[in-house]
Amino acid sequence: MPSIVALPTVRFEAGRLRIIDQTLLPGRYEIISLGTVDEVCEAIRSLRVRGAPAIGVAGAYGISVALLEARTKSLDDLRGCLADATRRIGATRPTAVNLAWALERMRVVWMSAHDATSLTTALAREADAILNEDLAMSDAMTTHGATLIKDGDALLTHCNTGGLATGGGGTALGAVFAAAAAGKAVRVFANETRPLLQGARLTAWECAQRGVPVTVLVEGAAASLLSSGKIASVFVGADRVAANGDVANKVGTLGVAVLARRARVPFYVVAPSSTIDASLPDGACIPIEHRAPDEVVRFAGVATSPDGVEAYNPAFDVTPADLIDAIVTERGVHRPPFAFGRG
Amino acid sequence: MPSIVALPTVRFEAGRLRIIDQTLLPGRYEIISLGTVDEVCEAIRSLRVRGAPAIGVAGAYGISVALLEARTKSLDDLRGCLADATRRIGATRPTAVNLAWALERMRVVWMSAHDATSLTTALAREADAILNEDLAMSDAMTTHGATLIKDGDALLTHCNTGGLATGGGGTALGAVFAAAAAGKAVRVFANETRPLLQGARLTAWECAQRGVPVTVLVEGAAASLLSSGKIASVFVGADRVAANGDVANKVGTLGVAVLARRARVPFYVVAPSSTIDASLPDGACIPIEHRAPDEVVRFAGVATSPDGVEAYNPAFDVTPADLIDAIVTERGVHRPPFAFGRG
Repeated sequence: MPSIVALPTVRFEAGRLRIIDQTLLPGRYEIISLGTVDEVCEAIRSLRVRGAPAIGVAGAYGISVALLEARTKSLDDLRGCLADATRRIGATRPTAVNLAWALERMRVVWMSAHDATSLTTALAREADAILNEDLAMSDAMTTHGATLIKDGDALLTHCNTGGLATGGGGTALGAVFAAAAAGKAVRVFANETRPLLQGARLTAWECAQRGVPVTVLVEGAAASLLSSGKIASVFVGADRVAANGDVANKVGTLGVAVLARRARVPFYVVAPSSTIDASLPDGACIPIEHRAPDEVVRFAGVATSPDGVEAYNPAFDVTPADLIDAIVTERGVHRPPFAFGRG
Repeated sequence: MPSIVALPTVRFEAGRLRIIDQTLLPGRYEIISLGTVDEVCEAIRSLRVRGAPAIGVAGAYGISVALLEARTKSLDDLRGCLADATRRIGATRPTAVNLAWALERMRVVWMSAHDATSLTTALAREADAILNEDLAMSDAMTTHGATLIKDGDALLTHCNTGGLATGGGGTALGAVFAAAAAGKAVRVFANETRPLLQGARLTAWECAQRGVPVTVLVEGAAASLLSSGKIASVFVGADRVAANGDVANKVGTLGVAVLARRARVPFYVVAPSSTIDASLPDGACIPIEHRAPDEVVRFAGVATSPDGVEAYNPAFDVTPADLIDAIVTERGVHRPPFAFGRG
């Protein structure tokens, strides 16, 4: 029996990809339905669905959407459509490896099918498998992660790593919820996570939904909070983990890791093995997505800087392995030195 | 001749305190006029006027406002009114020592006056002296600070430390402007400075006004920016400096200092001697103002977190002296170990 309750973050029903539109939270909880590859790409690019594992699942089902959108029964033409969809969906966000990983799993299926009918069946089965494995990995990794949490702990989080960041079960925040479900008293301190406020909007919403006490702070306040001795440990997710354990994650993570080490607060990363990219020796090889300046210099339609001011807006940063006390996957709690192999 | 152009941040004209309403920037530049102690307190509390040196000057002129508001010619009654105004204005913001320092200078004047007429004259003269000394200190400290900046440097700033943060001349950002005025090519990378975005709103506005190139970033992006090797040095202001050189400044400063040290980027504090509180041996004694949760969980009238979520919202943090490469005052560039004596 799964120890945590999954959110319907990404589901495929009646030929359409249905997602919780995360840009509307916490004000509005709304499931939107995507029927074209264009809509899927827009939803991923705009962070209507976000979180490395969640966009992996969404990408897989995006191929199912492409298949239904394709107006052909020719196997070759179908493959052409799917290759095009793979390229377009894969280009939406470069840093999280889960998207490329899921699309590659789907590609192997549509390349090896012998006819259009078996291709359709096999793709549907593979996408469902990716979702179900994601849910199972969440269940396992959050159970492992919860062993690092003691009764009464206050945990600092960055970005959102709950059910909304995955197929529904969560990574780092899921571990906190698993600890709470196991009867431990926990409190979450959530970095708001500028520019898109995934912490203030989504982590706080998930905590409120589950009755876990949550306190939001601006990133600038994390240094004094960590120095205060109130925080037992830091729990973050990952968008890509290199073979040596360097971790790309939401911008701001590196700063939290440096401050946690200075304050002697353990820093834990929780991510499924689909987030590990063993083909990369270290974090310097991870491509970092840079996003539009408007995310920084406008808010809710209001300009926060004078017109024409530039913004530096990387979506991710890389935390070196030597600042990480453990990387938790569905396989267990990995301690340094990290050495993740292929396969 | 002053090397920098002063903004009319805080002025006293025709019996009223006139300030640039900084909550309206960058959208609107508006001078508002304050005629009562209540209005002065509200303006300081709401950060219509902010920055340690600026609220010192505003506090001094607040006593002039109190004097005009008092409907009495009795010296004792006047002193009672001024004591009450001193208490109310002094309670608006506890961390910046400049406010207490300026109010104390004014108190010495109104306590030692022999009659109502000489009291009035002496108070007006003292408040003007505080403003003029502030402008002169800005001029000297920004000139000293500019010696730390080389042609072609990119500087990282936090919060706003330009003319808006002082009587008009600036502290840390003023040093950058002084370097630019001396013909050095400089670029400012401005931490947006959540929750109230003094960097995005005010630093970017001042840079744009002066034609200094500026790039805004969220606090979370400072770690990777500092690691990138692009930043020559960090320039911040201060709200209170203890005798040992520990510095209270806008929340987030400590994190920048830790990251700068890790990246071997020099970290400079620029502040007038009125910001030094030699009565405090170290930063642990500095009172830290905590502000309303709404600053964090609402923005431009929009709720960014679910209703009822708590926020941790300290307005300042303390950077230990051992992370500071120099403290620049109007007297020159002080290098560690710091030992600031009284008077």
